[in-house]
Amino acid sequence: MSKDAPIFECLALIGTGLIGSSIARAARESGAVKTIVATARSETTRRRVAELRLADKVADTNAAAVEDADLVIVCIPVGQSGAAAKDIGAHLKPGAVISDVGSVKSAVVADMAPHLPKGVHFIPAHPVAGTEHSGPDAGFAELFVNRWCILTPPEGTDRDAVARLAAFWRRLGANVDSMSPEHHDLVLAITSHLPHLIAYTIVGTADEFSNVTRSEVLQFSAGGFRDFTRIAASDPTMWRDVFLTNKDAVLEMLGRFNEDLSVLTRAIRNGEGEKLFEHFAHTRAIRRGIVEIGQDSAAPDFGRPHARLPDAPLPRPYASNDD
Amino acid sequence: MSKDAPIFECLALIGTGLIGSSIARAARESGAVKTIVATARSETTRRRVAELRLADKVADTNAAAVEDADLVIVCIPVGQSGAAAKDIGAHLKPGAVISDVGSVKSAVVADMAPHLPKGVHFIPAHPVAGTEHSGPDAGFAELFVNRWCILTPPEGTDRDAVARLAAFWRRLGANVDSMSPEHHDLVLAITSHLPHLIAYTIVGTADEFSNVTRSEVLQFSAGGFRDFTRIAASDPTMWRDVFLTNKDAVLEMLGRFNEDLSVLTRAIRNGEGEKLFEHFAHTRAIRRGIVEIGQDSAAPDFGRPHARLPDAPLPRPYASNDD
Repeated sequence: MSKDAPIFECLALIGTGLIGSSIARAARESGAVKTIVATARSETTRRRVAELRLADKVADTNAAAVEDADLVIVCIPVGQSGAAAKDIGAHLKPGAVISDVGSVKSAVVADMAPHLPKGVHFIPAHPVAGTEHSGPDAGFAELFVNRWCILTPPEGTDRDAVARLAAFWRRLGANVDSMSPEHHDLVLAITSHLPHLIAYTIVGTADEFSNVTRSEVLQFSAGGFRDFTRIAASDPTMWRDVFLTNKDAVLEMLGRFNEDLSVLTRAIRNGEGEKLFEHFAHTRAIRRGIVEIGQDSAAPDFGRPHARLPDAPLPRPYASNDD
Repeated sequence: MSKDAPIFECLALIGTGLIGSSIARAARESGAVKTIVATARSETTRRRVAELRLADKVADTNAAAVEDADLVIVCIPVGQSGAAAKDIGAHLKPGAVISDVGSVKSAVVADMAPHLPKGVHFIPAHPVAGTEHSGPDAGFAELFVNRWCILTPPEGTDRDAVARLAAFWRRLGANVDSMSPEHHDLVLAITSHLPHLIAYTIVGTADEFSNVTRSEVLQFSAGGFRDFTRIAASDPTMWRDVFLTNKDAVLEMLGRFNEDLSVLTRAIRNGEGEKLFEHFAHTRAIRRGIVEIGQDSAAPDFGRPHARLPDAPLPRPYASNDD
């Protein structure tokens, strides 16, 4: 297969929000598929997808979208994936690969698998990528470049189907890994779900504290708070479903987080500077590790833009210190 | 006074880390002062400051640095500000403005004020700006543009001195506000100190969880975790001092945060989707407020750079949906 040959003939996207519409754009730009059929639950979104020309065809129903597809990707909040599988089950082409993009895998497998016929290849997946924006306008083709896509193929899944799905994600710029749904849910509970829950919490806490006004919170948010507001601006429906469907792993991580927070709280209360310093020096190393493996920018402050000094006169030359 | 005339003749910087060296660069670029004298505790840093030509003169001691200064800014971890004030107290020029950049104000006032002579103007300040990097190489002239600098002048402070310090910060691109040290410490506890403590905690939690390896945590950090690692990479000495010196306000905010986290935890445990959704939809609005007042970028993902699709063929034209 030539490097640029399509990997699938026809891709059907069930859902065209940030992730679905990014897949559409990336699949098109990279030539990963020949044709794209897309659908969305609301007529407004379907119309917008047509306006943006994100797909060759916009279908009105999930069933109609998948009829000709040899790759179907379900890109909707995980709480709806069972219903979507039920919609499409009877309409899938034999031999088609059925996948998803959900942030939780065990629950998705349990919800979708019973509705899928024999003769299709069900390979759940999770591209670990996103932004705080939602909807078909928010997507972009580069979203998956250098991010990881985790596949959780059930035991006995056709190897060729897995290889083709992996090739599809690689064509979109992603790295591909695979693991069990249970391990995925544990890993993501700590790298994604807990951080989101904590961010949602602290942003709420700041907003409810009566001795500090909301405008003060916004005004002085550059002290650190604003970083949390980005994550806490993520799609509410998607995240409600994540916490409801990955409850056990999230609660376990929360328990551990609370223990650690108690330790640091006690160190502050007791004025144990050495203990605080050691903890803070240790976590600095983890940031370096993430930057080193290319999972975040080395630029300070995430590379946020900084405006230039307003109307600065030409810099005057400095006296050399050696003079 | 012409817009571009220097606001102070001679600026002395006690400490030349991220903030001190950014002030040096910005004061130079903007012409806010005529000359800059800088010092640092370690000889290595002083040598580096000289190499970088951040100042007209690098002094070996705090006392020597301030002799000719009519503006002195102490830019060191807040736990050391009392000792610095003691060093410089007897060497200050009458009429000089003495300020600082500490993230905590009540403790700094208590520590510094007793060592400062009558006849100088002590005006504590806090520019709410920074990055996760430290040291004289990390500074840049644009750091304060469109950020807020909070002044906490004691009652009865000379108005002209306050106006000149405010003009200095505005020349560096900052907005200037003023409030009491106590209120500052409360506002910053929620907008800066609590977020840092939470980030330091969660990054530690992730690193100690034995069922998920560190390399998995790093690899899949783009799911949200990596955002926290930036803040948790901030200078350990600075942050140790912040928590030790703003203990009461931080412990109060921690208590409130814990209450809110318990509410969300219970909602997850009980499967209360509606309650989660409402909370998550509410916090989204706070992000919008921050972007609207220009305290963060509207670009998705903080404007992090996204690599292009590798070797993508030319995009093929799409069939129109109307055909």
